[in-house]
Amino acid sequence: MATAALLTDRYELTMLQAALADGTASRRSVFEVFARRLPDGRRYGVVAGTGRLLELLPDLRFDDEALGWLAREGVVDERTCEHLAGWRFTGDVDGYPEGEVYVPGSPLLTVRGTFAEAVVLETLVLSVLNHDSAVAAAASRMTSAADGRPCLEMGSRRTHEEAAVAAARAAAVAGFAGTSNLEAGRRYGLPTIGTSAHAFTLLHDDEDAAFAAQVAALGPSTTLLVDTYDVAAAVERAVALAGPGLGAVRLDSGDLGELAHDTRRQLDRLGATGTRITVTSDLDEHAIAALGTAPVDSYGVGTSLVTGSGAPTAGLVYKMVAREDAGGDLRGVAKASRHKEGVAGAKRAWREVSGGVASAEVLVVEGDGGAPEVPGARPVQVALVRGGEVVAEGATGPQGVRRAAARHGEARAELPADARRLQRGEPCLPTHVLGARA
Amino acid sequence: MATAALLTDRYELTMLQAALADGTASRRSVFEVFARRLPDGRRYGVVAGTGRLLELLPDLRFDDEALGWLAREGVVDERTCEHLAGWRFTGDVDGYPEGEVYVPGSPLLTVRGTFAEAVVLETLVLSVLNHDSAVAAAASRMTSAADGRPCLEMGSRRTHEEAAVAAARAAAVAGFAGTSNLEAGRRYGLPTIGTSAHAFTLLHDDEDAAFAAQVAALGPSTTLLVDTYDVAAAVERAVALAGPGLGAVRLDSGDLGELAHDTRRQLDRLGATGTRITVTSDLDEHAIAALGTAPVDSYGVGTSLVTGSGAPTAGLVYKMVAREDAGGDLRGVAKASRHKEGVAGAKRAWREVSGGVASAEVLVVEGDGGAPEVPGARPVQVALVRGGEVVAEGATGPQGVRRAAARHGEARAELPADARRLQRGEPCLPTHVLGARA
Repeated sequence: MATAALLTDRYELTMLQAALADGTASRRSVFEVFARRLPDGRRYGVVAGTGRLLELLPDLRFDDEALGWLAREGVVDERTCEHLAGWRFTGDVDGYPEGEVYVPGSPLLTVRGTFAEAVVLETLVLSVLNHDSAVAAAASRMTSAADGRPCLEMGSRRTHEEAAVAAARAAAVAGFAGTSNLEAGRRYGLPTIGTSAHAFTLLHDDEDAAFAAQVAALGPSTTLLVDTYDVAAAVERAVALAGPGLGAVRLDSGDLGELAHDTRRQLDRLGATGTRITVTSDLDEHAIAALGTAPVDSYGVGTSLVTGSGAPTAGLVYKMVAREDAGGDLRGVAKASRHKEGVAGAKRAWREVSGGVASAEVLVVEGDGGAPEVPGARPVQVALVRGGEVVAEGATGPQGVRRAAARHGEARAELPADARRLQRGEPCLPTHVLGARA
Repeated sequence: MATAALLTDRYELTMLQAALADGTASRRSVFEVFARRLPDGRRYGVVAGTGRLLELLPDLRFDDEALGWLAREGVVDERTCEHLAGWRFTGDVDGYPEGEVYVPGSPLLTVRGTFAEAVVLETLVLSVLNHDSAVAAAASRMTSAADGRPCLEMGSRRTHEEAAVAAARAAAVAGFAGTSNLEAGRRYGLPTIGTSAHAFTLLHDDEDAAFAAQVAALGPSTTLLVDTYDVAAAVERAVALAGPGLGAVRLDSGDLGELAHDTRRQLDRLGATGTRITVTSDLDEHAIAALGTAPVDSYGVGTSLVTGSGAPTAGLVYKMVAREDAGGDLRGVAKASRHKEGVAGAKRAWREVSGGVASAEVLVVEGDGGAPEVPGARPVQVALVRGGEVVAEGATGPQGVRRAAARHGEARAELPADARRLQRGEPCLPTHVLGARA
């Protein structure tokens, strides 16, 4: 790839060209990222991808290869290419800390800079946050439904190979305990999991030979896949070969609840009382909840997780909410169309919390004198970038994921009890927008 | 990234370790990629991603950074790390040409090699094909519904930043005429499109100033976005500023059918009879079909396209269908579980076509003497890789996309007429599986 800078929509650069020509490119501008609504009856969203964005942002440049292509293709004119050669983001970014929950209107990310700086970020910001937040929102419902039992991410094969790494990361933000994806393990320090597939059993002359080979190579604490032929016969074989210290058996088909009960009884009868049962067949948050009374020790989740369980994108938008006018003052702006109106002006976000339970999201529109504090509420936004440099501590790399997971646990625990219901419903917090002087 | 080789599930490598230890790693194996079912009442699937896979495959290696991490983490033992240091794929791959249509059971890709070679490819093969084929299947329904009017891909912001590039490519395979994604333009030679967003209008003191700036910078043939405030007033302004040679206006909200009719009448009245109308608000194949009688000149599609319009993954699986036995003979294998059975043995695929219309997919299971031809049918598979080297001509890079788009046009045109219906239904071709000696 020439550079991450071309991971963008053409119109960001043609707008830049037109704004450079008439001088508006240098106007100070404020863009906010928010959701107009939550997908599919969800009660809350989960901010994810912020750490990835902060890893990408400082290095974002238009290199010679990118500039050469833009010029050759005539995407933008020579003046714009020259501007892009020196382009870097030197503005400020504030945002909800990664892992925080949000509701419609919550300003997840606020970007301040010249129009030339801020407009160029739009597509990349949205790609990262829309993908990662969609996965994290689904993951959060799954870890909620699992009620303390570990959830393991196994969906790499169902999504784009690089999206898979980001999905594993987003799942970890929302409480997943491990991932099958090795690159996610390497890049973000996530625990990786996985032992064998049906192909390994089929490769061998019989199941006995396959189990013996796996136990010899990976030790008796391994997880044996027991549903290639007959589950009960395989469990018998597995314990006979690995001994009662067998780590786990995996069920990947059939009626998982019934099979888990049968298998648990069989394992106990065989003396393998410590052998765990992991289930992995097309699970989503509803299937996980339905298995709550079954003797299941961990859930492996693939397709539903990486595709956002019915909501594969978070639907976040990046909208200009204020910009400098001809007189040099910052002025709130909003599109006036009937169907997509927004609230003009940069907003400070507060969460009203009473007795440890969140009750409302309060957005205070900034005025000339800034935005007043909301008594008894906690401020949600934190400083992420100042003058183009990342200032948020520990927000990137493996540490960023760990901190985001901790933040998510706290933020979710603070929500009203019905926020964790899987049924469709309204956003779990009402949003109040206050003028700067309210 | 250390290497694309870590874009995989941990169990591929633990299986390798166990198979190296007991000698089965060297058994010749055949894996097939196929769909157990089509998603969501779809009538056909579209093969996409093959070219991307062929770009990745020859360079797939475990480099020192990857090997060091695998060793440090104890993912696999020393012997396996040593094996991986010399690992490369030296086997054969056959497959449906990119752009071809498929139905359940169609062997889209057949991988032959030792178990050690073939098992390592599983996750990456599925990530690429599942993502790209999901987008292409949705795109094909959209270009069908558009019935010759150009469809433009604008979904980058709704999906992971690298998935966005692959999605733009997959859309082109299924007949999309352009993309907003610049990196997709650069990497695959796709036409790129886009001029301005609402932010550009909001940046300016009024719409007049914004339109004047855009026309000055990009010329009167540009596309002006006319729904920031009042559409009719904006159209009036747009033609006044750009003249009747204005390229196009874009409608991004409201009742697009009604607005398109009103706008067309207004443009014609203003003498701008050549000015085109492009619409871009949350379109999917059904919305496109519903606009068939409206005076719309092109469709910009975002969210629905890149998320597969309800089916964000193609659900393809990579299954072992045959492997060498202890005597050195290739033996068909299949999992026996009730819910996920497959057909043992490598399969040759033929499409029965009569009078230019496809009528069935015929899969012939290979026996000792190969697989007999099916008279009157065309063979679907082509040779992609031999001895680890790509042998398919023109299957990669920009040429690969162009050829795949041509193939898709031909393959879709050959389907029975009702295959293009948007309503839910059965796969448009029945699949017949014949034994090698049938």
